[in-house]
Amino acid sequence: MLEQYQKQKKRTKSDFKAAMQPLTKQLDTLQRTVQKHNIAAIVLVDGWSASGKGKLTAAMIEPLDPRNYRVVSAESVASERGEPFLKRFWKILPPKGKFLFIERGWYRALYEDKESGLVRRKDYESRLDSIKRFERTLCDNGYVLFKFFLHIDENTQKERLSAYNANENTKWRVERRDLRQNKKYADYFEMFDRILIETNADTAPWRVIRSADSRYATEKVFEILTSGLQRALDEKQQGYITAPKIILPDKQLIKMPLLDQVPLENCHLTSERYKAELEKCRAELNILQQKIFRKKIPFIVAYEGWDAAGKGGNIKRLCQSFDPRSYEVEPIAAPTADELAHHYLWRFWIRTPKAGHIAIFDRTWYGRVLVERIEGFCTEAEYRRAYDEINEFEYELAKNGCGIVKFWLQIDKDEQLKRFHERENTPEKRWKITDEDWRNRERWDAYETAVNEMLSKTSTQLAPWHIIESNDKRYARIKALKIVIDAIKILLES
Amino acid sequence: MLEQYQKQKKRTKSDFKAAMQPLTKQLDTLQRTVQKHNIAAIVLVDGWSASGKGKLTAAMIEPLDPRNYRVVSAESVASERGEPFLKRFWKILPPKGKFLFIERGWYRALYEDKESGLVRRKDYESRLDSIKRFERTLCDNGYVLFKFFLHIDENTQKERLSAYNANENTKWRVERRDLRQNKKYADYFEMFDRILIETNADTAPWRVIRSADSRYATEKVFEILTSGLQRALDEKQQGYITAPKIILPDKQLIKMPLLDQVPLENCHLTSERYKAELEKCRAELNILQQKIFRKKIPFIVAYEGWDAAGKGGNIKRLCQSFDPRSYEVEPIAAPTADELAHHYLWRFWIRTPKAGHIAIFDRTWYGRVLVERIEGFCTEAEYRRAYDEINEFEYELAKNGCGIVKFWLQIDKDEQLKRFHERENTPEKRWKITDEDWRNRERWDAYETAVNEMLSKTSTQLAPWHIIESNDKRYARIKALKIVIDAIKILLES
Repeated sequence: MLEQYQKQKKRTKSDFKAAMQPLTKQLDTLQRTVQKHNIAAIVLVDGWSASGKGKLTAAMIEPLDPRNYRVVSAESVASERGEPFLKRFWKILPPKGKFLFIERGWYRALYEDKESGLVRRKDYESRLDSIKRFERTLCDNGYVLFKFFLHIDENTQKERLSAYNANENTKWRVERRDLRQNKKYADYFEMFDRILIETNADTAPWRVIRSADSRYATEKVFEILTSGLQRALDEKQQGYITAPKIILPDKQLIKMPLLDQVPLENCHLTSERYKAELEKCRAELNILQQKIFRKKIPFIVAYEGWDAAGKGGNIKRLCQSFDPRSYEVEPIAAPTADELAHHYLWRFWIRTPKAGHIAIFDRTWYGRVLVERIEGFCTEAEYRRAYDEINEFEYELAKNGCGIVKFWLQIDKDEQLKRFHERENTPEKRWKITDEDWRNRERWDAYETAVNEMLSKTSTQLAPWHIIESNDKRYARIKALKIVIDAIKILLES
Repeated sequence: MLEQYQKQKKRTKSDFKAAMQPLTKQLDTLQRTVQKHNIAAIVLVDGWSASGKGKLTAAMIEPLDPRNYRVVSAESVASERGEPFLKRFWKILPPKGKFLFIERGWYRALYEDKESGLVRRKDYESRLDSIKRFERTLCDNGYVLFKFFLHIDENTQKERLSAYNANENTKWRVERRDLRQNKKYADYFEMFDRILIETNADTAPWRVIRSADSRYATEKVFEILTSGLQRALDEKQQGYITAPKIILPDKQLIKMPLLDQVPLENCHLTSERYKAELEKCRAELNILQQKIFRKKIPFIVAYEGWDAAGKGGNIKRLCQSFDPRSYEVEPIAAPTADELAHHYLWRFWIRTPKAGHIAIFDRTWYGRVLVERIEGFCTEAEYRRAYDEINEFEYELAKNGCGIVKFWLQIDKDEQLKRFHERENTPEKRWKITDEDWRNRERWDAYETAVNEMLSKTSTQLAPWHIIESNDKRYARIKALKIVIDAIKILLES
């Protein structure tokens, strides 16, 4: 997409001023309309060293209200050791109605920080795909994404770097890698060009901006911004055009039984057997947890299940085996206002476990295809799309070495009723039962359909579902513990 | 406070069980009462290596609902380079109604991470004071703080470390510094003892727990937890006892004029003069900003002022001089639910600038003694206490090298009325004026009293207030820019 640079006539100051006045005013107005319509915009500025990224960003934010935007550079977005490379960008996604200006952003992750070259071939391809999926799910979920690449030719770059170097106040900004880039301009040209071509999606196209003349570049970028925001507003009223799906590698679905085909009768344990098994499992888990802690392997245990199926007690038995400083229980309730203002996966991304830690989710991102689907908190298109988005989310984590085990705690309708009554009749347990539980119970069939669909579409080799027969709590606890034990063992061996 | 260790009779298993049953039940109930009353509890567990901190924490969280607590160890609380040492603990303060269990916590900051010794004498004293003030403001603002120190004698420690070392599964946990601690037990004894004595405040007392017998320790800790939480609940109903003030070092107040003694008439600039000055200031600021960026000096510019005094335009002129990647504008609106659930300074602590960055606050923490005071969003005791708390907050930042400049943008009542009408009559500006502005205007006199008190009590050498005469916007902008320029210059020279 990068073309050999052709000299242009410079834009005169007066022409520039005349062109910019209406554009600036338009952007000033658009920022408020966009906010009113809850559209978040991400403006990614990549480009050659010394191509004027900072200056251009300064120009773009000038007409904006400081409450409406945030500026970050990829270098300053801290990444914790061992986390998936996209996590830090998920963390800083702008809430609805706001702008994020980001320098280089996730594209930086395609080449080494210190070295000139690309990341390892294998990582490169895989990261490229991750980026494509990331941008697609952003656009699908209402984010507007602008990607600018500032293009200058070899000589312009050389001249600018020399000028910076000659000035006492700007000298410090020229780093060795900038000089190296100029020296190997042709190699970089090829690399950038390839990245641009490969990530030039319909919904998130690259705009290459020739920026030897900064007036020309500024004007161009303002035109693209204003027309792009205007289009986003129009589309919002017409409904989005969903981007074509990107097939996930290795997405091997595991065939799951329907819920009503899961026999619950014979799944129970005597109290003695339970105690003995529990003790054995705990000792084993304790050691396994220390091992993954030392090896810095992150691990997720995700719990879903019917109300009163025994998630709490099950989670408790699991936690008791672990060192309290190396796991987190993440109880998932209705999203807060801040969480609602972001991509629905945002609140889960920011809670994924750090290296060596175990995150136990008490309810999960599957809320999208369960409660949100059934209560109508999202549209049909949104929950239909969610199966892929969720598989991709889990894929990103698994690819980064994270173990994932997902439990569906299954009880039958009679057992649930029995437990509801028991909760109502026990003073210490009464807080556990709410009107909402009764309401959900009335929709048992709708939930069953949704659960069956979820199990069939999201049980993958990397993140399999396990149905836990839970009419007998003791049986359920031991079964869950054993599955976690096996999963950690397999992970340690792989 | 540490005593020579005396051998105790071990608690028998059956005695222990009998004692723990009611305590556990009590804690289970208390967690919900405490939550209902919006009390946040912080449980800090410090102690010798191998004294059983992890095991004790595991015991404490067992009866708790995972939604009610979070466990962290000081090691895992990330600290960004150059930030004040308390910032990372401010960041993780639990919201109201929740528990935070923290291993070592801020006490770790009193001795080097890698070395056995204390931090440098000067830093040590200053950190000790910072910790005292930190704990005091937590307690004053309704947090319940438990501080446990687990105490074992030299031999017990030696035996435990040897036992860990002998076991393949626990060997990795024994670090060199643990062995070193045992080798120099007497020195550490003296150091710990001193820290305990010096930070043994009335509102945040240390509880030394002999933990050679883990049953004894667990029981003891449960007793203290339950009775402490119960006391907090009782006190909440009676009102808190405020801890004695801790005098801030170097708090030299600068005498400020009363607002009605500030002459506004002669403060104006012609358009030409303004343009010339603006250009000069910008060039200078641009270079100065690069310098503090390179030297990793953080800087805060705080704006307060009457509605329509011109904060927005003033901030804009300031920002235009800076590289967009090295400053943040922080617009402060009404606190969110999450922010309300924390100490009122929390939302400002987490927004303080990182090393080399400039944070510009559009309204500030002074809301506590302005709008919150006048609208009755806090009690009189709370806003009276806030002057000290705010001085301490700024002191912590300044001590860490951060420059702080605070502006009060002063206009008179007639000028405000003129600007309100102008906003109402200009379509593009109409969004800027709300009913609230008119309501605030009616309370002009109450605000004036509050502002005068604020200026007189919080203008310190480290964080001085500057009154900016703003009837003429051009004059105001240039004056503010020049003050920032001078402040950065002084900081660079110091």
